[in-house]
Amino acid sequence: MSDIKFKQRLTVEQVEEGTDLAPKFQDDGLIPVVTTDHESGELLMHGYMNEEALKKTIELGEAVYYSRSRETLWHKGATSGLVQTVKEMRIDDDQDCVWLRVEVQGNGASCHVGYRSCFYRSVPTGENFEQKDGELNFEEDEKVFDPKEVYGDAPNPTKL
Amino acid sequence: MSDIKFKQRLTVEQVEEGTDLAPKFQDDGLIPVVTTDHESGELLMHGYMNEEALKKTIELGEAVYYSRSRETLWHKGATSGLVQTVKEMRIDDDQDCVWLRVEVQGNGASCHVGYRSCFYRSVPTGENFEQKDGELNFEEDEKVFDPKEVYGDAPNPTKL
Repeated sequence: MSDIKFKQRLTVEQVEEGTDLAPKFQDDGLIPVVTTDHESGELLMHGYMNEEALKKTIELGEAVYYSRSRETLWHKGATSGLVQTVKEMRIDDDQDCVWLRVEVQGNGASCHVGYRSCFYRSVPTGENFEQKDGELNFEEDEKVFDPKEVYGDAPNPTKL
Repeated sequence: MSDIKFKQRLTVEQVEEGTDLAPKFQDDGLIPVVTTDHESGELLMHGYMNEEALKKTIELGEAVYYSRSRETLWHKGATSGLVQTVKEMRIDDDQDCVWLRVEVQGNGASCHVGYRSCFYRSVPTGENFEQKDGELNFEEDEKVFDPKEVYGDAPNPTKL
């Protein structure tokens, strides 16, 4: 078990204006995590941590998530080699969300579909939405890796 | 009501590899939203949209969230003037998360505490955690605005 202890949430001022780390987990025990490339600022993925994953991430300095589809701790890169080294961790005003600024090891990809970022498609907005019939646009031209080579027959985490 | 129609989610291939906009809302009817500055890549906030908020954001080209604390649609900037103009909207692989790249109007702040970003404090990781006794570090030196002047006596959205 980890030696890291989080502080108890006592007042709004303590949580918003203080230096106590007092994260708030949702009713399901998870806290959302936003992961960006530490240099480009590109959003790589959006995930979740439970208390243990957050403590392990702090200790290791590498991103450890909680996989909702597999219902287990998920040391990112354990299968693919695409470890996310934490360059900076931040927490938001009410401490119910974590921001990781990371450097991705290996080929630099973070998305199980094979792209660099999970957010490889844009949604047209305003007048463009109608003009483009609401169709998504691919913003990454090609995949960085072939998911079949990396994950083999592991089940796809995407749920309908 | 909006004219925008989302597509039905039929196959994993359609959702991940296609151009259909077929967002997945959580059991509570919400989808998480990550909002970054379109130029610097700085993470400004993490919020939620329901179906109506997502459609309004697409139509207006301005961020409209769903406020979980106030249980209502929330056209960001309606009170503070700090409207978020959407420069680009993206959606992730399994379409259960939205990324907004925005330009913030007015003084450029996005955080109700008065800072530019909600993520104004860092968490020490690795060896630094012990060395700093786990204390958060302020990464923004001063507030951009005084919340009392902008929001008056409106209740603070932070929950313990």
